[in-house]
This record gives sequence, C-alpha cells and structure tokens, in this order.
Amino acid sequence: MKYVSFEVAGSRRSWGAAVDGQVYDLGPGGADVAATLRDAIAGNLLRDSLIDGLDPVGRESEVSFLPAVPNPGKIICVGVNYRSHLEETGKAEAGAPTLFTRFADSQTGHLVPVQFPAVGTQFDYEGELAVVIGAPAFKVPSTDAFSVIAGYSIYDDFTVRDWQRATTQWTPGKNFPGTGAMGPYFVPAADVDDIQSCTLETRVNGEQRQKATIADMRFPIDRLIEHISTFTPLAPGDIIVTGTPGGVGLFMDPPALLSPGDVVEVEITGLGVLRNEIVAEQ
Amino acid sequence: MKYVSFEVAGSRRSWGAAVDGQVYDLGPGGADVAATLRDAIAGNLLRDSLIDGLDPVGRESEVSFLPAVPNPGKIICVGVNYRSHLEETGKAEAGAPTLFTRFADSQTGHLVPVQFPAVGTQFDYEGELAVVIGAPAFKVPSTDAFSVIAGYSIYDDFTVRDWQRATTQWTPGKNFPGTGAMGPYFVPAADVDDIQSCTLETRVNGEQRQKATIADMRFPIDRLIEHISTFTPLAPGDIIVTGTPGGVGLFMDPPALLSPGDVVEVEITGLGVLRNEIVAEQ
Repeated sequence: MKYVSFEVAGSRRSWGAAVDGQVYDLGPGGADVAATLRDAIAGNLLRDSLIDGLDPVGRESEVSFLPAVPNPGKIICVGVNYRSHLEETGKAEAGAPTLFTRFADSQTGHLVPVQFPAVGTQFDYEGELAVVIGAPAFKVPSTDAFSVIAGYSIYDDFTVRDWQRATTQWTPGKNFPGTGAMGPYFVPAADVDDIQSCTLETRVNGEQRQKATIADMRFPIDRLIEHISTFTPLAPGDIIVTGTPGGVGLFMDPPALLSPGDVVEVEITGLGVLRNEIVAEQ
Repeated sequence: MKYVSFEVAGSRRSWGAAVDGQVYDLGPGGADVAATLRDAIAGNLLRDSLIDGLDPVGRESEVSFLPAVPNPGKIICVGVNYRSHLEETGKAEAGAPTLFTRFADSQTGHLVPVQFPAVGTQFDYEGELAVVIGAPAFKVPSTDAFSVIAGYSIYDDFTVRDWQRATTQWTPGKNFPGTGAMGPYFVPAADVDDIQSCTLETRVNGEQRQKATIADMRFPIDRLIEHISTFTPLAPGDIIVTGTPGGVGLFMDPPALLSPGDVVEVEITGLGVLRNEIVAEQ
C-alpha cells in the first residue's frame, strides 16, 4: 500500500492511503489512526486493512500533496553518492559518505510548484531515493540497518547551485523554502520487492536526464545507516536522502539548468512519479 | 537579568532566572510563565520583575544546566568567521558566510561532561558567541537585523576533527551527541551593553587559547542575519553560532587537541563562563 500526507479543503492537513487514485483519510479528520504519518510509522500502525470499510476523502487530484513526511526530525542528505555524478563533478573520492542537511521547512510536495529563488542564478534538479527511518537507531551495524527502515519515497533535491557553491559548505543552496520535494508516496519497505534493483530516472520536460539503479550507489543504504547512526541518533520519520546520479543540469555540456516553466519528474520503480513545475519566485 | 534552562530533582526540566547564584523557577513547576525559555522568548515574556516575591528553587550548584535553549528549531553555525582562524586553516576567503548546521540533540549544558567519542581521534574546542533569534525573520535586511535578536549566550562548538574533515562537508564532526555546549546563561540583548566590544576568551586547563573581540568577525552579526534569512526563515529560539577565532587546538604548533580530563572554559564579557570537562565516551 502507498501512503500520502495531504491537505484538503484549503487548510486541513492529514495523511492517509492512496489506492487506485483514491485517497483514504487515516488522520484526525478521518479514521484517526494517528496524528501524522510520522506518528503512524513510529507506532508501527500501517497495514492494508486500515482502509477496510472507509470511503475515500477524494481522488488524488482533489487533494494537495504535502511532503510524504512533512515533519521529520532530521533530514540527512548524501552528496556525490553515485560514481556517475562523482565523475561529472570532478571531485576527489572520499572514504566516507559526504553529508549535509536540510531543514524540514525546506520541503514541499508532489505537484506543488517549486519556486526558483529570485536571488539565485542557477537552479538544478537532483532525483534521489529517500529512505525513511522506522525505529530509534543509534550505532546500528550495517547488518541490522534494514531493520530500522520504515520505507521509501522519491526526493527531488532542488538546488540553488550558486548558493551551494559560494563557500565550501552547501547548506544555503540546499535550504531555500519549498525546494526539497518528497513524494508522492511513502511506501513501506515490506511493499518494495528489492530496493537495490529499482531504477531511478529523472526527466525534464519529458527528456531523460538521469538514470541509474539504486545498486549503483557508492555507499549503499546499509552502510549509510551504519555511518550516520554512528554520530547522530535517528528516530522514526527521519529521512536519509541518498544522493543523485550523474546527469544534473549543471554538468551537462552545455549546462542545462532549470527555468520557470520546466517540469521535472523523478520516477523510481514501484514508488511512483514525483512531478514539480518550476515557477519564478512570486 | 540572566536566564537558564535546567533540570532539578533528577529529571524535572524547567527554566528560570539566575540571580546572585540563585535559580528562580519560571517554568511549569514554578511561576509557570511559559513552558520553556524558547516559549518565553517567543512570547516576549522576559522581564526582571518575574522573580518578584519568588523563593529560589536552589543555588546554581544544585541544578543541572541544560543548553540555554534546549529545543531550538534551527542551529546554524558559521565557519571561519574570524580572520585569525581563517589564516590558521589556510582556507581561501569566501565572499559569503560559510554555514553548517547542528541538530538540537547535539547540544549540552554548562558543567555537563562532554564525551570524546570513541570512534574519533581528534577532539577540539571552538569558543563562540551564540545569537538567539527572538522574532520570525525572513529576508531581514542588515539594518533591521538587531530587531530580531532576543539575546546572547556562549557556545563551545566541540568538534571531532577527523570526522569533520573526512569529506568536504562538516556535518558528521559537528553533530556527535552532547558536543555543542551552550550556556550557562541566555542574556537578553537589552541587558548587553555593546556586543561588538565584548571579548571572547577560551581557556584549556586555565591556559588562554583563543582571544578576540566580537567586532573581529569577518561577517558581523547583522550581515549574518541578512544572509541566513535570505534562504531560510528563522523563528524565536533559533540559534546562530557565529564562528570561532584563531587558536583552536588542531592548528596550534604542535597541535594541542583535547584529551579526557581537560577542562575547557569559554568566557564572553557579560555573558559568564561556560565550563566543560572532557571525558572518554562511556
């Protein structure tokens, strides 16, 4: 089953299940399974039977998607984690994962227009797999790592390149409001057949820009969890954004950065298609 | 007046005022002015008269200090923000502030032993001024920046150098649990005469290692707030850790990194002395 966080009737925020294009409200205004999807993950409450006997609150097209997990405690992002992207950047290979962070309020949802900040000059996409943590995790060996994963989502780590590269630290270019798109769905790990063999593809205006299999990661998911949980405790709902393959706009020849009106889609096998249009900042 | 966040009787967490070595409980177990110091800052509730008629809950030595603001939404740290530190690192000068982040659970309080992580080999101090935000702040010009400051505290941005420098991004070496010491006090801006002329001094086992005036910052406080609030909205209780002067242990000749048993003190004029002993990880 796939789960979503959404807003209905203008302002009521909830979460629920998405089945055959219909959304079932499992939040406080509906079946009230838990206050948020993060709480449902933390309480291990997700199961297909939750929608039994429920009427849908509406079609997917009738709700506004929020980030699949709108309120994570920590968002840890991995840089240059595919060889194809490492090579195009010309960076040296490090012996450990390269990690930076996003604040939760830098996130946005599927189909929500993403604003190209007026102060930026280079706006770029980065299609990625998001891993959502399901249990408290501190000092977890890689052999136990999959036991602390709740599930997966798709991430577009939109980046203001000139603000990312202004200094050695990438924080500013990665934290403009509404530039971390997550969704459409959260899919429990048990419902994903083999994450390693899944394919990630990013398209801009329908043209393929990035394509990789998850197994191409330099630091695979289990090693990321071991490494990250060595220095910081993870909790249910925390998100690891696992890095982008080669083919970002900045390093195309010639560069193919984003402009208002461009539509970016990121698709991962079994997880759906995350779609966002770029708009000029209002 | 000076304010503290603290724990008493083993586990009850509160906050209050510290006057002449006595602590007055202004939290839920005491005068109940607000749930946390952050809430009191957000509500603009701090004033000297809050302690009128109150008996102290105990002496400073009878409470356990928490980070002055234990629950900030965002902690944004500035790297190489004093010329003396920039020069000792040998880094190139960037035209913008170098920014990284800490998670709130990487913080600790005055007098709390700081654990030298077992997986690290190089543990270092960084004495800094912490600026605490007092009002929502997005796209604030430098000319208005001081109006969104609630007050100040002292920060020791303890760093696991080998984990900081393993890749280009510093996140891991800056986020081990209990390595961001903040306190002892939060001091409202109105009670600080002229922050620019204040002196910052770091001592290890009584020996002076760092000394600077706040005016020595490359990017002063008002420009930091302008720059940061351009890409991320700030909220009451958020913390900007403004960078460390020259004299960190790594760049001394020979290097003088920390070992268990060392005692580090950071003092800033009018803000008190933040003191932590280093211990081996348990």
